Amino acid sequence: MTEPIMGFPATSQDNYQLNVINIIRQAAKSFGGQEIVSNTPGGMFRYTYADAYGRIQRLGNALNSIGAEIGDRIGVLDWNTHRHFEMYYGIPGIGAVLLLLNIRLSPVDLAYVVNHAEAKYIVVDETLLPIAEAIASSLKTVKGFIILTDKDLSEIQTSLSPIYSYEELLSEAEPEYRWPVLDETSAYGACYTTGTTGRPKGVYYSHRNIYLHAMALAANAQMSFEDCFYQLVPMFHAMGWGAPHGAIVVGAKYLLPGMYNIFDLGSLAEPLVNEGVTVTAGAPALLMPMLEHIRKLDEKPDLSGARFLCGASDPSLAMMKGYADLTGAEIIHAYGATETTPLVCANRLMPWMKNKLSDEEKWDLKRKQGIPVIGLDVKIVDGFGAPLPHDGQSAGEILLRGPWITGSYYNAPGSESSFTEDGYWRTGDAGTIDEMGYLKITDRVKDVIKSGGEWISSVDMENEIMGHPAVLEAAVAGVEHPKWEERPVALVVPREEHQGKIERDDIVGHLAGKFAKWQLPEAVIFVDQIPKTSVGKFDKKVIREEYRDIYMK
Amino acid sequence: MTEPIMGFPATSQDNYQLNVINIIRQAAKSFGGQEIVSNTPGGMFRYTYADAYGRIQRLGNALNSIGAEIGDRIGVLDWNTHRHFEMYYGIPGIGAVLLLLNIRLSPVDLAYVVNHAEAKYIVVDETLLPIAEAIASSLKTVKGFIILTDKDLSEIQTSLSPIYSYEELLSEAEPEYRWPVLDETSAYGACYTTGTTGRPKGVYYSHRNIYLHAMALAANAQMSFEDCFYQLVPMFHAMGWGAPHGAIVVGAKYLLPGMYNIFDLGSLAEPLVNEGVTVTAGAPALLMPMLEHIRKLDEKPDLSGARFLCGASDPSLAMMKGYADLTGAEIIHAYGATETTPLVCANRLMPWMKNKLSDEEKWDLKRKQGIPVIGLDVKIVDGFGAPLPHDGQSAGEILLRGPWITGSYYNAPGSESSFTEDGYWRTGDAGTIDEMGYLKITDRVKDVIKSGGEWISSVDMENEIMGHPAVLEAAVAGVEHPKWEERPVALVVPREEHQGKIERDDIVGHLAGKFAKWQLPEAVIFVDQIPKTSVGKFDKKVIREEYRDIYMK
Repeated sequence: MTEPIMGFPATSQDNYQLNVINIIRQAAKSFGGQEIVSNTPGGMFRYTYADAYGRIQRLGNALNSIGAEIGDRIGVLDWNTHRHFEMYYGIPGIGAVLLLLNIRLSPVDLAYVVNHAEAKYIVVDETLLPIAEAIASSLKTVKGFIILTDKDLSEIQTSLSPIYSYEELLSEAEPEYRWPVLDETSAYGACYTTGTTGRPKGVYYSHRNIYLHAMALAANAQMSFEDCFYQLVPMFHAMGWGAPHGAIVVGAKYLLPGMYNIFDLGSLAEPLVNEGVTVTAGAPALLMPMLEHIRKLDEKPDLSGARFLCGASDPSLAMMKGYADLTGAEIIHAYGATETTPLVCANRLMPWMKNKLSDEEKWDLKRKQGIPVIGLDVKIVDGFGAPLPHDGQSAGEILLRGPWITGSYYNAPGSESSFTEDGYWRTGDAGTIDEMGYLKITDRVKDVIKSGGEWISSVDMENEIMGHPAVLEAAVAGVEHPKWEERPVALVVPREEHQGKIERDDIVGHLAGKFAKWQLPEAVIFVDQIPKTSVGKFDKKVIREEYRDIYMK
Repeated sequence: MTEPIMGFPATSQDNYQLNVINIIRQAAKSFGGQEIVSNTPGGMFRYTYADAYGRIQRLGNALNSIGAEIGDRIGVLDWNTHRHFEMYYGIPGIGAVLLLLNIRLSPVDLAYVVNHAEAKYIVVDETLLPIAEAIASSLKTVKGFIILTDKDLSEIQTSLSPIYSYEELLSEAEPEYRWPVLDETSAYGACYTTGTTGRPKGVYYSHRNIYLHAMALAANAQMSFEDCFYQLVPMFHAMGWGAPHGAIVVGAKYLLPGMYNIFDLGSLAEPLVNEGVTVTAGAPALLMPMLEHIRKLDEKPDLSGARFLCGASDPSLAMMKGYADLTGAEIIHAYGATETTPLVCANRLMPWMKNKLSDEEKWDLKRKQGIPVIGLDVKIVDGFGAPLPHDGQSAGEILLRGPWITGSYYNAPGSESSFTEDGYWRTGDAGTIDEMGYLKITDRVKDVIKSGGEWISSVDMENEIMGHPAVLEAAVAGVEHPKWEERPVALVVPREEHQGKIERDDIVGHLAGKFAKWQLPEAVIFVDQIPKTSVGKFDKKVIREEYRDIYMK
């Protein structure tokens, strides 16, 4: 990589470090009266930025009191709660590393992550104690567990030891904390990737990374103190998509859903109107059930002007249209990954394009991942690393450089091949960029279906199937074929009212206009649900495994 | 100053440098079709971000072709034009320093600035040639002059030599430029302060400084690609208040007024509606004449939702109400200085305060400079440097730390006293911060009127006088008094229709309710205009000088 060149010296305070604690410290003064609202078993818990910062200062002292120090890694197993929010600031504030633990990981992977990170403490919500208990005996570095509960510690039954009560520690702690000034390249927090192959890999985000991403997220979601951000996306996924920082840096109201039940995601829709939500973010796996819930309401919520960032997997056109028609909310198709903090692209319709495109063209445009966020260097390259033209046709691997892109995986020998020699992270995604700058993921490089020497985009095909009115969800994967190398298999979840009434030919007929005949799937299988990874993406590895013999009979 | 502490290492790409060229380079891709519009003698000139970036690349090659190199300082004498905008990116892009030259400085000061900066080239608009010619013989380091003109160079009559044509250089240059990666602490550009005492002092802004300020400005003005920013404030003042970066980083339409006549500022109002302006920034000296122009229009422009940042001196309540009533535009009282890039505070009414304040209280609140922008450390201290409480009463000096605050003046021995030992810049302003976080400047520390051992705020008094319906503008300064040490003198400019019809007693009677009897000015003098500095602030030094004997007779 080229070393930066030093020009003429400046007089600016360039030694002022971007420390994430400054966001809440300063926001507690400038937006002190703004609300943070958290859904708890006892009802809606409400406090202000100033109150939260008071507790965050106590948390700093509490952590020091039990022996946590600069550089320590502290794991957190929690829902989207106000305590989780406090830890987003208090743990990195003292110079420790906020290690976010995905509650949906297998015990083996979870223990691997904690041990790999050499975590000193684990903070765990009382409802998640079984998860911590299941791995406790495998943990090599953990010195204690901090329990999130409103109960007295004596009422908590657990095999974990030693244990502390978060609330007791806070109530005993000094109310003011003198935050250290950290070098901005120090680790703020860590998330581990949950790739479908191999062990989880650690991304350790610097304070600088988180700070700059916060500003970019706020700008791209057009957020201000007049907004209410709803933290739908789990806070253990890619730093909660940066919203616990991006919403606060502009003084937005901040709403947390608390613990939510995977079988009742629709109820997440309820606070949308009551609390005045204007911005949220989540995977289709969250936004879809919410929309289905709204569909059944007699009175649809009016969410005009609201912006719902949607990523992790492609939002279907049906879902985007559904939100627009029923509520007025705009789904902003976005693109990113754990390695990118995550915001890389966001799909907005530019004012100068409004009059140039037909309605259909506008919807078609929304299927793309959007324009690269300013601050990042996004390029597509061919198999030899040569940049491809932005013509909307030339598909290549997407490479990323920028302050909120990871430059390596922590202590992961063999992972160097994920980075180019000149410092770009290889996304593993294949895509195009059109003349207007819109990026479209055509596939995971490894999920492209190679059939008879040609490529079939599994993503395009599943999106098209999801456009069928009777279809709720669909996934397409390539499986081995004796003659054609690979052929597509389509898994389809019909809408409730269409179950048993839709057949393979309906799906293939629907695809026929858009895909070449040789691309159409022979196997269309109707299922109740599609296998997903712990972050809600279609688990193509499992699908390929399960249907590996379907064309081999 | 405390050295930052290094925590656990991160994996982020912290070596990715914040270079300002990336803003336009990336925006030219993501917002390539967005418009930049410049008012020229030949009519409105329109082009896109992509076009502008094309010319900026040519500018980079052109500058190298005449010998400009990394680290060189290049002075610019220009109006708010699209070429000026191009230089905002092209000059720092190649690693040189954009030295902004205030066209209203005296020749002595201007020559001082160019020599102090050791500028290698000067770029000058053909209409400003007399300014460059007046100082040319005093310049010690300048190797050539680049002329901004549509004419052929042979048609330009000037004593300057050697001269180049900006347009010819660009047309001859290669269309693509490979920008160097600069250390982000390298100087991007420089402005010199025009303090009322002493020689101009140089503030050299780093790339990091400009980049982070751009993000903060965009967030605080709630700017996005849906906005149109109008570059009213001169681009040679405090980096054009950061708008040439802040508007572009979010993809806003960018409107430049070109050359404007100080005697016809009202005409600046004309493009407001035609071009769809939603955000602008300027001193009251610009916004006031524009409002007077609007007042005379039969049909008032509808500017609902527009945000007009106003700083340099206090916007009067009359002006703020005038814009609200006649156009719907909100004047956002802001605070900053050359040393602060400039944004430090912006006055916005928080949603949670709307129902708690009466209309009168809301207007009263708008007189304050506003809440500190997130990213900065703002404090008020007493004469011993001890922090004062945020009670809205305790007044002290305002000290600033942050990435876009200067840490020194360039090569200015003796200026060290402007900084505290722990690295804060001393603003020289006295102010209070209230419980809600709003900062109010009570006075320049040196402009406080010390009368009989007590203080009188000159700013409060002039604002109050400007609230009188017959008054257009008013300034108050303290002058020597044989008995009371100092006493206030008020200079008052009546509105056109009230000239000769308003008397001292009207003014003093108007003040009587708000000020103690001993604070009221004996001398109230009606004038046609108030002496101002080159940045449009009241020149208290001149006022004090002119009326020094008024109480000594």
